[in-house]
Amino acid sequence: MSARSLFLLVVCGVVRAQVLIAGNEDAEILNPEKTTEEDLRVLVQQLMARVQKLESEREDRGQPQVAFSASLFTAAEWTHHGPFEAATTLIFKRVMTNIGDGYDSNTGIFTAPVKGLYYIRFTGCVGDSGSLNAAVLKNGVNMFAIYDTRGTHGSGSNGMTLVLEQGDQISVTLWTGNSIFDQSRLSTFSGFLVFPL
Amino acid sequence: MSARSLFLLVVCGVVRAQVLIAGNEDAEILNPEKTTEEDLRVLVQQLMARVQKLESEREDRGQPQVAFSASLFTAAEWTHHGPFEAATTLIFKRVMTNIGDGYDSNTGIFTAPVKGLYYIRFTGCVGDSGSLNAAVLKNGVNMFAIYDTRGTHGSGSNGMTLVLEQGDQISVTLWTGNSIFDQSRLSTFSGFLVFPL
Amino acid sequence: MSARSLFLLVVCGVVRAQVLIAGNEDAEILNPEKTTEEDLRVLVQQLMARVQKLESEREDRGQPQVAFSASLFTAAEWTHHGPFEAATTLIFKRVMTNIGDGYDSNTGIFTAPVKGLYYIRFTGCVGDSGSLNAAVLKNGVNMFAIYDTRGTHGSGSNGMTLVLEQGDQISVTLWTGNSIFDQSRLSTFSGFLVFPL
Repeated sequence: MSARSLFLLVVCGVVRAQVLIAGNEDAEILNPEKTTEEDLRVLVQQLMARVQKLESEREDRGQPQVAFSASLFTAAEWTHHGPFEAATTLIFKRVMTNIGDGYDSNTGIFTAPVKGLYYIRFTGCVGDSGSLNAAVLKNGVNMFAIYDTRGTHGSGSNGMTLVLEQGDQISVTLWTGNSIFDQSRLSTFSGFLVFPL
Repeated sequence: MSARSLFLLVVCGVVRAQVLIAGNEDAEILNPEKTTEEDLRVLVQQLMARVQKLESEREDRGQPQVAFSASLFTAAEWTHHGPFEAATTLIFKRVMTNIGDGYDSNTGIFTAPVKGLYYIRFTGCVGDSGSLNAAVLKNGVNMFAIYDTRGTHGSGSNGMTLVLEQGDQISVTLWTGNSIFDQSRLSTFSGFLVFPL
Repeated sequence: MSARSLFLLVVCGVVRAQVLIAGNEDAEILNPEKTTEEDLRVLVQQLMARVQKLESEREDRGQPQVAFSASLFTAAEWTHHGPFEAATTLIFKRVMTNIGDGYDSNTGIFTAPVKGLYYIRFTGCVGDSGSLNAAVLKNGVNMFAIYDTRGTHGSGSNGMTLVLEQGDQISVTLWTGNSIFDQSRLSTFSGFLVFPL
């Protein structure tokens, strides 16, 4: 804040003070006969502590913003993926949202930038193998999954609130013998921070 | 604030100050011999700037509240809709939630009241044409979709986090030759503001 | 706050004030000739009111944190449930998240700890009866549902934003003649507070 703006600030404050006094002529507010300079010192000190408390709480409350969403493939053409001979991490390539930069479209992994309660969800379209079994993993452990053996051109969705520590990794795995398809908007992976912990 | 309440406020402050001093008799706090009236001026000025900063941040932080949800039809009877010869915006008529008044049940369009990160989701039940292809559009552009050709009495769901500018419009389109059904609670369209940007 | 830290705080404040003045030698800030002790009283009083307002708003803003998620069964073995001769509340036993302790895994009921806008969602896998009709109820009233008669090994999902009063109860009911299956992660029930009202 420049000296000029500080000066203006103070002038404004004093002007408002005059207005305040003019509008409250009968007010006994911080009356010179009742409020000594020592009282003022105490009041200023109290204010300093209260403002410091407000400031520190504000920092605590500085709500981090984390959200991502991505579709599996960038091409609008129908693309089937799998089946593979091993469990395969799905790498969602068409990133729509990545606030907080937690999602890595090179690896398919979302890494929680802060500890918090997240909502994570996933939709997968059954590929032409006719079976889709895929799971959302947290640090390699199965959290929730979709399972559909009813043939291609249908989908499954699932989602959960999960507590994630900072650095926890979320990804989607396609299990052996299954396939998924997309055309840039049918198979999606999304999440966001609901509140920090 | 009335003069009386201001007076009471000050009296309370002074009383608390006495208590504070009584409870900290050995404290050298704003000692008259160390803290001159000029120091007081500087401290008050600093406090004014800090409080002004807190106040302006508070205004920024005044979190807008936006959320909507609606089912396709109000009737509890099974109702099939489509297929149509042109792409048709689905107008979800049974509004359950509309905080912030962003959803218009006359048009089916949700208009973002503020810029922010939203979560938008959609569930559609395949109608008796046996095929449901429907998309969530942002200002007319396909964001994400569901596609199911496996016959009636099943559904697809999809959802994404999306950054919306103030005034951006979100709607659901049923593509040509497809149909959807509902009985007031099976085909739904919902969204909410996760955080403003 | 200890007397020592208060003392340090004041000393720091004065030191910062000197730095501020040194860095703004040409500033006419709270000039002794222009700012009388009475002006100081007014400024301090204004600050007290502004800080009090900030403090009370802060208390209003103390955002409650509520979120839950659970899968239907704890066993990783495939388990089919139903059909039953009466509507049956599904009791999701494998609790993944229960911040705010609103979800009761003995009853399957989520009770809103505070009034607010919640997002509630549900995924169910069709059991070996081949038909899954299940609804999310609020205080016994059907809010939204999934309906799938296309045979086992597929799923339906649905979700909605709902305004809940404190004490409102949300549960999932499996209707007569239907069945659901799970293996600890396929059929899930989740929700969270988006914002308090």
